[in-house]
Amino acid sequence: MNNELSSLQVKDIGEQGLLERLRRFCPPEIIGDDAAVLVTAPKQSLVVTTDVLVDGVHFSNVTTSPEDAGWRAAAANLSDLAAMGASPLGITVGLGLPGEVRVSWVERLYQGMTECLQKYNTPIVGGDIVRSPVTTLAITAFGQVFPDRIIRRSAAIVGDAIVVTGVHGASRAGLELLLHLELGQDLNDVEKTDLIRAHQRPQPRLDVLPILEKILNSQSKIVRLSEVEVQNLKSKIPVAGMDSSDGLADAIIQICRASGVGAILEYRQIPVPKTFNHWLTEDQALAYALYGGEDFELVLCLPQELASAFVQHLGQGAAIIGSITSGSTVLLHDEQKKFPDQVLSLSQGFQHFGQ
Amino acid sequence: MNNELSSLQVKDIGEQGLLERLRRFCPPEIIGDDAAVLVTAPKQSLVVTTDVLVDGVHFSNVTTSPEDAGWRAAAANLSDLAAMGASPLGITVGLGLPGEVRVSWVERLYQGMTECLQKYNTPIVGGDIVRSPVTTLAITAFGQVFPDRIIRRSAAIVGDAIVVTGVHGASRAGLELLLHLELGQDLNDVEKTDLIRAHQRPQPRLDVLPILEKILNSQSKIVRLSEVEVQNLKSKIPVAGMDSSDGLADAIIQICRASGVGAILEYRQIPVPKTFNHWLTEDQALAYALYGGEDFELVLCLPQELASAFVQHLGQGAAIIGSITSGSTVLLHDEQKKFPDQVLSLSQGFQHFGQ
Repeated sequence: MNNELSSLQVKDIGEQGLLERLRRFCPPEIIGDDAAVLVTAPKQSLVVTTDVLVDGVHFSNVTTSPEDAGWRAAAANLSDLAAMGASPLGITVGLGLPGEVRVSWVERLYQGMTECLQKYNTPIVGGDIVRSPVTTLAITAFGQVFPDRIIRRSAAIVGDAIVVTGVHGASRAGLELLLHLELGQDLNDVEKTDLIRAHQRPQPRLDVLPILEKILNSQSKIVRLSEVEVQNLKSKIPVAGMDSSDGLADAIIQICRASGVGAILEYRQIPVPKTFNHWLTEDQALAYALYGGEDFELVLCLPQELASAFVQHLGQGAAIIGSITSGSTVLLHDEQKKFPDQVLSLSQGFQHFGQ
Repeated sequence: MNNELSSLQVKDIGEQGLLERLRRFCPPEIIGDDAAVLVTAPKQSLVVTTDVLVDGVHFSNVTTSPEDAGWRAAAANLSDLAAMGASPLGITVGLGLPGEVRVSWVERLYQGMTECLQKYNTPIVGGDIVRSPVTTLAITAFGQVFPDRIIRRSAAIVGDAIVVTGVHGASRAGLELLLHLELGQDLNDVEKTDLIRAHQRPQPRLDVLPILEKILNSQSKIVRLSEVEVQNLKSKIPVAGMDSSDGLADAIIQICRASGVGAILEYRQIPVPKTFNHWLTEDQALAYALYGGEDFELVLCLPQELASAFVQHLGQGAAIIGSITSGSTVLLHDEQKKFPDQVLSLSQGFQHFGQ
């Protein structure tokens, strides 16, 4: 990119001029009316989620390239859809911009956003660009889900296995490596890059949904149920869950609160990146995994008999980390008895990171 | 409201505390998961529109109470749905707030928003509240429409009548009265209040849709068509249009551009508030009507034979103001020949208001 182009500012071309340049990131048939039209599949419900991201609060040019900020914003919203069991239909992007922002910055933001979206066949279906004293990104994502496949926080049942779809703590570790260059001396370049990549380019776990569907359906086939019985079974196996964007501990506590249950977690079962033992104490690794946040994995509660097959199909990093109990506390238990049992609370997370 | 309550700031209770207080504006069954679930009616398409509003750019405490800012934000989004022919399903609200904003301000904003939404049975189905150096409101609205009833800008046909669903210029006149207290000396209090109200509490014209439906259906009944013929007829009478939120001239120019047609407007047919002749010159009245903006009426293009019946059903303020022509210019014509014909352009609007 030559210098003249990259120094062009939003105020030089105005909101309309910017809109013209950003059209290439959107499907052409969708632009040009007061609103966008989407078609939901028959009998599916619409799922809607929205996020507002503010420069200096949720992203910053210091640690995040515009491409990564765009990717992360898209990934966070797609992850919220995955957490509801929904497949994405599209997103809208509302953008507030100071006149001094470089046009190339905005284009790079959209580049990162669409890289993530294209991986999941999700179009940008509309948006709004306005003047603002601070760069602000408001994303709303839409998805669809069959009503009997909606994943809710409130559906956990005593006895359910608690499954995580992948390792936790990687995103936080990547951020620490970016912020503190003196860290991770014992890691090689590939190991460092992998952790940093987990922070910069988190993967929403939409790939989990067809696997979950397969597991739920296989159950009914094994015992040769009638169609009506299958329908009954479906409505009787509600999968509870949410994503771990605000941390694994937060997800489990939120699910327990919403479902009116407790949980016991097995400390040694919580999957963390293999490289953690090269440079983190057990305490640090646990703090990153439980409270680090932004891993964008799914935390799901389902019957034990389905959970093992589910974890096997999911592969790498997925694990059963505990089970739902009666009561109201989330207990962390170490089968090796190296650590005493502890009750998890959200305030611990804040303590761990001094916020 | 006592002083202690009204001086409470967002930073005193945090985003979570604020969220708790705002729950009363949302349906309880919808809160608590990563995303909201909505059900679209069978065979209808989903319509999505999004707007970002920034303090000091799109609203200001100087001319707008928080209730009115909330009402106007909701109304603008509902109007975009109406402009597509869609009935509303719900909205999400993304809110960026400095810590110093008063909690009572936010509650009054939501109060105004829900007053407007409740009038059209539209719930707030989700949202996000974040810290931001500038108050920012990002609204996304969802609606549904039968695919053969989608109103598009690009569907105008040569010979179509151009219908406005109500008077134009009132919102701008109201704003001028608010900004310049010396204006409108010849208006009585009721007349002033009506114009100011048009600015502060614009009405999205969702009420137009069932009337339009009736007119489109009556056509097929008069000539006793079969069900198949009715379906064909429906797809053959596309109604073109958009809302006049950015001004009447803008709406007609946008429709003509998108449809590849021109238009002729009859100056004397453009409906303005009756009180305009008490205090505005003909020139001023025309400028307010064409370029004032924010009237949130619909500008629709449909066959002449349907337009008259449609306008009659709509009643007060609705009028046929011209017709679609071949060519590419929008011509303003005065049948009384007091003014010479003029070609409308968007830049005229900017000139009129010195922007």
